[in-house]
Amino acid sequence: MSVEDRWLLPEGIEEILPPAASRLEGLRRRLIDLYTSWGYELVMPPLIEFLESLLTGTGNDLELQTFKLTDQLSGRMMGVRADMTPQVTRIDAHLLKRDGPARLCYMGTVLRTRADGFGGSRSPYQAGVELYGHRGYESDLEVLTLMLETLAVANIADVHLDLGHVAIFRELVRQAGLDHDQEKILFEALQRKALPEIRRQLMAWRLAPSAERLLSHLAELNGDMAVLTEAEALLAGTGAAIDAALVTLRRLVTALQRYRPELPIHIDLAELRGYHYHTGVLFSAYVPGRGHAVAQGGRYDEIGQVFGRARPATGFSTDLATLLRLSEPPGRIHRGIYAPDTDDPALERQVVSLRMQGERVVRALSGGAETPPGLGCDRILVRRGEEWVVAPVPEEPVGQGRIH
Amino acid sequence: MSVEDRWLLPEGIEEILPPAASRLEGLRRRLIDLYTSWGYELVMPPLIEFLESLLTGTGNDLELQTFKLTDQLSGRMMGVRADMTPQVTRIDAHLLKRDGPARLCYMGTVLRTRADGFGGSRSPYQAGVELYGHRGYESDLEVLTLMLETLAVANIADVHLDLGHVAIFRELVRQAGLDHDQEKILFEALQRKALPEIRRQLMAWRLAPSAERLLSHLAELNGDMAVLTEAEALLAGTGAAIDAALVTLRRLVTALQRYRPELPIHIDLAELRGYHYHTGVLFSAYVPGRGHAVAQGGRYDEIGQVFGRARPATGFSTDLATLLRLSEPPGRIHRGIYAPDTDDPALERQVVSLRMQGERVVRALSGGAETPPGLGCDRILVRRGEEWVVAPVPEEPVGQGRIH
Repeated sequence: MSVEDRWLLPEGIEEILPPAASRLEGLRRRLIDLYTSWGYELVMPPLIEFLESLLTGTGNDLELQTFKLTDQLSGRMMGVRADMTPQVTRIDAHLLKRDGPARLCYMGTVLRTRADGFGGSRSPYQAGVELYGHRGYESDLEVLTLMLETLAVANIADVHLDLGHVAIFRELVRQAGLDHDQEKILFEALQRKALPEIRRQLMAWRLAPSAERLLSHLAELNGDMAVLTEAEALLAGTGAAIDAALVTLRRLVTALQRYRPELPIHIDLAELRGYHYHTGVLFSAYVPGRGHAVAQGGRYDEIGQVFGRARPATGFSTDLATLLRLSEPPGRIHRGIYAPDTDDPALERQVVSLRMQGERVVRALSGGAETPPGLGCDRILVRRGEEWVVAPVPEEPVGQGRIH
Repeated sequence: MSVEDRWLLPEGIEEILPPAASRLEGLRRRLIDLYTSWGYELVMPPLIEFLESLLTGTGNDLELQTFKLTDQLSGRMMGVRADMTPQVTRIDAHLLKRDGPARLCYMGTVLRTRADGFGGSRSPYQAGVELYGHRGYESDLEVLTLMLETLAVANIADVHLDLGHVAIFRELVRQAGLDHDQEKILFEALQRKALPEIRRQLMAWRLAPSAERLLSHLAELNGDMAVLTEAEALLAGTGAAIDAALVTLRRLVTALQRYRPELPIHIDLAELRGYHYHTGVLFSAYVPGRGHAVAQGGRYDEIGQVFGRARPATGFSTDLATLLRLSEPPGRIHRGIYAPDTDDPALERQVVSLRMQGERVVRALSGGAETPPGLGCDRILVRRGEEWVVAPVPEEPVGQGRIH
C-alpha cells in the first residue's frame, strides 16, 4: 500500500472534518436539549455486544448488516451495533425496570456491513427516541410530533408525512385464512404495489369473495386524507382490531391537522415497512427529491419480551449526517481573537477572561508565521498602556495608487 | 442462552444509563467548548478504517489492542479504532494540508481487545487535543495547560503532574554506542527502576566510564524540582540535544510555577512511556489512590511522515468515563413540570412555551397511573380560569394522627 493510499477510507465510511463536525455537534446538542425538554432521558448503549443480545428479535436483515467480532476474553461472538433501537429496548426491559412509561433518547454512530437507505453510508449517526410502557394513541402522537420537531430543529423544509398501520393487513390476512407462505407472497407484492399480480394471486387462492375484495383493495388505499375516509367505509364491520387501527389513524390525523395544518399527510395502508416487528401505526418523513425516508418510526409492542419483559413501545429514528446534508449550511464564520506571542501576565489574564466569556482566543506560537486571518481570527489583542484590549485586525497597507 | 443472560455485556464493555449519560454529555459539551475557546477545531474520525491506515506508525501494542473486521465490499481487513490519535494525525497530514499550526480536538468511544489502564474498560470514551505544525516549547505548554484545564473542568481535585523528556535517554544511548538489543534491555530495566540490575548490566557492557555513570544515574533522576537542577548539573556538556531537552523542561516548569503555583510537579527523566513514537516532552496527570494516569500526552514529531507529511505534533488524551468516576456526582435533581392529559389548545401553547424557555415538561399519557414525582417532576400545570399556570405538586394528604 503506497503512502497515497493510506488515507483512503472504506466505501461508505465517513469522517467528519471542520467545520461540518461542529455543525453536527451543534445539531446533536439541540436535539438532546429538545428531547430532554420533553422528558426523555439520554442513554448511551455500547458499541459492541454479544451477538445474541444485539440481534434478539430483530430479524434477518439486521443480522446481515452486523459486523461480527470474536471476543478474545470469552471466545464468544460479538457484533458492532447496526441499529440502536434493540439496545435501548434491552435497557428498558432489563436495566431500568420502571413500571410507568419510560422515555429514552439516544444518539451515536452505528455501522453496517452494506450501505442501505442512508445516502450510501455504512456509518450513519443514528438519533432517536423510544417511549415504553404506554399503549394508547397519545404516545404515538408524542413520538410522531417529536420526529417532526426534530426535522424542524434541523432546518429541514418541505417535509411530507406518510402514515400507515400494520394491523389492517395483518387482520385481513388472518380473516382470509392465508397461510404463512401466502402471506409472504402477498406482502411482497404489496410492497411493489403490483396490482394485477395481487388480483391474479388472490383469485388463484379461491378466497371468500369479501376477503378477496378487501385484500385486493388494500394496495389502492394510498393517497391524501380521502383515503382514510374510503378505508373507514370499506372496512366497517371487519372487527375490533381493524376498527381500533382506523380510530388511531383518525385521531392522529385530527391532532396533526389541528397543530400542524400545513403538513402534507399521505395515507398508505399497504405500507408495511418493518412488518415483522411493528405492531401498530407506522410513520415516515420524506422530503422532495429523496427516495428514502429522512426519519421513520412506529409502534412495536412486546419487542422487549425476548429480554423477559414485554412492554408497549413506540419510537422513531433518523440519521444526523443525512439531516445535515439536507439542511442549508451556514456560511463559514471566522470569529476569534488573535493573542500575540508575548510573555505578559496581563495578557494571560485577559486571554483567560475572554475565553471565560465564551470567546475563541488563539495564541500565536513562537516562530510561527501565522496571521490572524490564517488562524480564523477577526480581531486581535493589542497593548494600550498596562492593558490588553481587543481591536479589529489592521487592514493591509493600501497601495499608493489609491491615495488621490 | 437464556433470557436472563441476554442482557449481559462483554467484560469491560460499558453502557451508560441515566443519569450518568447526561453527566457525560455535559462534560463532553464543557470540554468541546473549552477546546473551541482555545482555537481547537472538532474532528470526528471514523469508527473503522482499513488496518493499514489505522496502525501505520503506531507500533505493535496498538495492533494487539485492535479488533479486526473483514470488509465485505473490498475483501480487505479493517480495524475498529483503539486510539484516535493516529486518525487525527492522518486527518492533519492528508485532509487539512494546512501550512501553519492546526489545532484539532476529538471525542468518542474507542474499543480495545483487552482492558488496559483505563479502569479495566475496553471501551473508554477518549477525548483529547493535538497541535500540529509547531516545534517550540510554547505548543507543549499550551497542550499541557489544556490537559490541566480539562481536569479542572471535570472537577478532578488533587492532580499531580509527572514531567519527562525522551530525548535525554535517547541521546545518552546514542553517545554510549549501545546497539538496539542493549537499548531495549536498558529501556525495560529503567521502566522497572531496577537500579542494581541496571548497574550490573552497564558494567558488563564495558562502556566508557562517563557514559556508564550518566546512564546509571538516569534511573535516579526522579523526584521534586531539585531533580531538574541536579540533572542540569550532571548533564552539562553532553551536547545540544540534551541541552535543548533540559531547557524545554525548565521553561515548562517555570511557566507552570508562575500560573499554577499550587500544582505538585514530579520530574522523572527515566519515564519513557510511548518511547517508540514520542520524540520530546512527556507529561502525565495522576490523582491519589489511582495507579494509572488520568490523562497523558507529549510530543511526537514526524509521526505524520507515514502519511506523506512530517509535521511537529504535540497532544494529550484522557478518558471521560474515568474522569466522571473520579469527580463527585451531584445529587440527582428531579426538576420538571407535569402536564395533565387534557386536550386543550391553551395547555398545548403553554407546554410549547415552557419547553422553549428550557423547562422539562412531561405529558401524562391516557390510562397511565403516573404521578408527577414518578415522572421526575417537581411542579404541575393547573388550570386557573382560561390559563394554565405552573404550581407546586400538591402534598400528600396528611394522616389524621398528624393533626396537632
